[in-house]
Amino acid sequence: MTRRVAIVGGGTSGLACIKSCLDEGLEPVCYESSDDIGGLWRYKEEPEPDRANIYHSVIINTSKEMMCFSDFPIPAHFPNFMHHSSIMEYFRMYADHFQLTKHIRFKTKVLQVKQRSDFSHSGQWDIETENKDGKKEKHIFDAVMICIGHHCQPNMPLHDFPGIETFTGTYFHSRDYKTPEHWRDKKVVVVGIGNSGGDIAVELSRVTKQLYLSTRRGAWILNRVGDNGIPLDLSFNRVLNTVRRILPFGLFCSLGERKVNQRFDHAMYSLKPNHRMFSQHPTVNDELPNRILSGTVQVKPNICRIQGSAVEFDDGTVVEDVDLVVFATGYKFSFPFLASHVVSVSDNKACLYKYVFPPELDRPTLAIIGLIQPLGAIMPISEMQSRWATRVFKGCIKLPSMAEMIKDNKCKQDTMAKRYVHSQRHTIQVDYVSYMDEIAELVGVQPNFTKMLLTDPRLALNVLFGPTTPYQYRLRGPGKWAGARQAILTQWERVSKPLMTRPCNEPRPKRMFKWALLLMGATAGLVAYAFRDSFTDFLQDPNALVDKIKTYLPVQ
Amino acid sequence: MTRRVAIVGGGTSGLACIKSCLDEGLEPVCYESSDDIGGLWRYKEEPEPDRANIYHSVIINTSKEMMCFSDFPIPAHFPNFMHHSSIMEYFRMYADHFQLTKHIRFKTKVLQVKQRSDFSHSGQWDIETENKDGKKEKHIFDAVMICIGHHCQPNMPLHDFPGIETFTGTYFHSRDYKTPEHWRDKKVVVVGIGNSGGDIAVELSRVTKQLYLSTRRGAWILNRVGDNGIPLDLSFNRVLNTVRRILPFGLFCSLGERKVNQRFDHAMYSLKPNHRMFSQHPTVNDELPNRILSGTVQVKPNICRIQGSAVEFDDGTVVEDVDLVVFATGYKFSFPFLASHVVSVSDNKACLYKYVFPPELDRPTLAIIGLIQPLGAIMPISEMQSRWATRVFKGCIKLPSMAEMIKDNKCKQDTMAKRYVHSQRHTIQVDYVSYMDEIAELVGVQPNFTKMLLTDPRLALNVLFGPTTPYQYRLRGPGKWAGARQAILTQWERVSKPLMTRPCNEPRPKRMFKWALLLMGATAGLVAYAFRDSFTDFLQDPNALVDKIKTYLPVQ
Repeated sequence: MTRRVAIVGGGTSGLACIKSCLDEGLEPVCYESSDDIGGLWRYKEEPEPDRANIYHSVIINTSKEMMCFSDFPIPAHFPNFMHHSSIMEYFRMYADHFQLTKHIRFKTKVLQVKQRSDFSHSGQWDIETENKDGKKEKHIFDAVMICIGHHCQPNMPLHDFPGIETFTGTYFHSRDYKTPEHWRDKKVVVVGIGNSGGDIAVELSRVTKQLYLSTRRGAWILNRVGDNGIPLDLSFNRVLNTVRRILPFGLFCSLGERKVNQRFDHAMYSLKPNHRMFSQHPTVNDELPNRILSGTVQVKPNICRIQGSAVEFDDGTVVEDVDLVVFATGYKFSFPFLASHVVSVSDNKACLYKYVFPPELDRPTLAIIGLIQPLGAIMPISEMQSRWATRVFKGCIKLPSMAEMIKDNKCKQDTMAKRYVHSQRHTIQVDYVSYMDEIAELVGVQPNFTKMLLTDPRLALNVLFGPTTPYQYRLRGPGKWAGARQAILTQWERVSKPLMTRPCNEPRPKRMFKWALLLMGATAGLVAYAFRDSFTDFLQDPNALVDKIKTYLPVQ
Repeated sequence: MTRRVAIVGGGTSGLACIKSCLDEGLEPVCYESSDDIGGLWRYKEEPEPDRANIYHSVIINTSKEMMCFSDFPIPAHFPNFMHHSSIMEYFRMYADHFQLTKHIRFKTKVLQVKQRSDFSHSGQWDIETENKDGKKEKHIFDAVMICIGHHCQPNMPLHDFPGIETFTGTYFHSRDYKTPEHWRDKKVVVVGIGNSGGDIAVELSRVTKQLYLSTRRGAWILNRVGDNGIPLDLSFNRVLNTVRRILPFGLFCSLGERKVNQRFDHAMYSLKPNHRMFSQHPTVNDELPNRILSGTVQVKPNICRIQGSAVEFDDGTVVEDVDLVVFATGYKFSFPFLASHVVSVSDNKACLYKYVFPPELDRPTLAIIGLIQPLGAIMPISEMQSRWATRVFKGCIKLPSMAEMIKDNKCKQDTMAKRYVHSQRHTIQVDYVSYMDEIAELVGVQPNFTKMLLTDPRLALNVLFGPTTPYQYRLRGPGKWAGARQAILTQWERVSKPLMTRPCNEPRPKRMFKWALLLMGATAGLVAYAFRDSFTDFLQDPNALVDKIKTYLPVQ
């Protein structure tokens, strides 16, 4: 029996869902309210209401080898960190290659997603849609995947800015920012130091008379360009992930903070937060330190009051004649087409089993895909979630009991609350490698390291000590891809290819990568040796080990 | 007898000259062809012929404590690397404070500077000027200081680009570049990777469809933001300068190259030159690596041919549909108002004693000020040259014989030719500390380290191990300034002040600076101890020591 799956949204996650449905022999129908694929990454000259919007110069913060779909590497000549135009080009290639577009109904809005009356045994859904001519239709589906992202509804906490109603300048949310020209020689305040805030501040500061970047908490700033010029996210491998999990949180943060302070002292640059480095979603910005040191960006504390064109900050300083305030204050998410008892959202928190399944449904036929904020790339995670969800829809994978799912969710929420600064931003945080492994284990596609070490040591070393690229989850199990091994062994070539545009006498990137690999291997060996007994203990009782380590180390 | 001095040009060097003349009791008359001070740093919306021109976003590459005039620190709240608007503000403050402007004849062009018939005993000059109404005047002066800079005449070697006459797009010299907007979504090639080329490439790449940065030789890229976020040029202190002079050139370059490769591998990024790091005037660019890694800037080799809208590079690759080529190919200098026998210039080379005095004149009453390209800031050097020149004009300092001066110049040219890549760019290169010390010694304002160590050790440590800020040359001798000591002791406060714009819990810049100081001190101590005998030998015979060291070290 072919089961029909409705997919709401034709962005990145939507494409991954169509592909997963096809792979699993399901029949996908994807409803996309706009006239094109791409979602967030579809650039529009004019912002459209209720849709994600990006600025003209936006470049993604995750590198191509980490952000690609697991069975479709991004072409070698594409840059490592892609402009939105290249990202769209890749998505189109993906959609063409797997013939996904024909499953999409464009310009069709989903008005309602409702359990059928016989849901408890059929698991089916009634879906009402509206096309561009206003024509409404009803459909019945066996399962639903919701892929609407979490960048559609701007969070604009105007009530936190007393006097904003008296402001004589312009203000808007970062989603409405496009290009900087219009603000030449003006005074601009950007509120918020997330990735949008940082990017927009840096860009505007090239034209403004003065740019003020207001941040309540401060931030630790990461770079795209990592040591030796390697994309930073390629260094977050399995070894580092293990170290992260073994080391006490405070110590791991200290190491990270020391590293970023070597680039520039966050206290001296007025950016140092009170919280630890990994207690906040990272802000990636290579150009900010130079902008601060040249004074074109001035870091400011929170705005406490606005009066006319004057903006007053928490430290009592006042900036007069402000022309523009950009609120880079993030987004909220909600599911307006779903009854609130299906997925209830409050304060950007939703109770979902591993961020995908509402635990309280009688049948697991609804999945939320891509509602995560990873330390890493979102695309492969959406894809992994969709592979899991389609296997669950088919009954190949059983979910645990409602109670267990709620407990798991509670546990994740507690861990998050303990680690992260309390904020609407930090409700769907996951660590890329850990989360991917967790879901991969459920799907049955987690690499088998022991077997690999014995049968294919070259590949095993690359998987263990190289970057945790998505291809690793196509080596075995359902959805296995014959090209995965080759894709892993050639990943560094695709990293260096777009950079080799001028012959140099000594084009030795590969040698350098080998050195990096060797070094990481050696480090891992040492760590493994040092913790060989502890590791077994750790698996049994993680807290005992943390306590044990704390007796040796000067942990704050 | 008051001696009258004509100063040609009211830019940075011109201001320094007026000030030095006044300090020495001379009577300056400065002729400035435009209607304002500032020279290169005076931003004009439209480029003006025969004048230096800067782009709108230009930020200086030397930090404020290193670039200021030696008796007039830049205000504490000014940023460390200043936008041209702040630089102009500082110049205006300087001109106001010392009442320099009243000595300037604006909108007055110097047509001719000619030795008087009795020059061999009077040393006097005939000067012909033309004011804005076209009225010509003749004046007699006892001495002349020429401060016209070396960024007025663009070097545009079109003959090196076959087919340029067929080019269907636009091309211009970097001096004619102002803002990027106009080139949105266009294809642009920037030729040359000097500081203008790098800056313009990075800026345009935020708007263009694709930006190609064409470089024949490649470059080593430095950053404004040095380790821990300290302005990079503040780390070039006397200790490092001594190390540079002691170590073999190749070894010192290797250390520097290793350091910059840690930030990004210059070979992997297609930027690695064949020459060594200190064989080229440095390109400072904090944002280029991120732009290259995101593919918005693509590094290319030299252009070999242009046909229609297609640009072909030396590696055989062709870029079609190019809309704009920017020639960031530097500048030439000449002295059109001077007879060629006074100062002859060929291939951007002029025979000048220590870059200031034409050696072949009977009387030393003509000085060229600011005709240098330092590894460091130009303003304090112009000022030091003007202090020297005015003392020479007054007869307080005697120049050596013509033969000796020519020999000194020859020696400098040979050293430069040996060290630097052969290029029109490398004809007036000086190392900041060495050159400042050299001229300061002649003027009698070189700090007396031994005495200082005994009488004021705190100051001595700051002078030896801190950055070689210009105040050091106002501690003694002619032009001594009572505020110099205090300016040195408070220099780090002025560095951190503009950055402290948001209260952080731990504003520890001072502590950090003290650590840096301690570390530098310790390093210096070790170096001094290790080389204690060698240093004495070195002073007597530098080459012998270099040879000796080479026997110990694996120098390439």
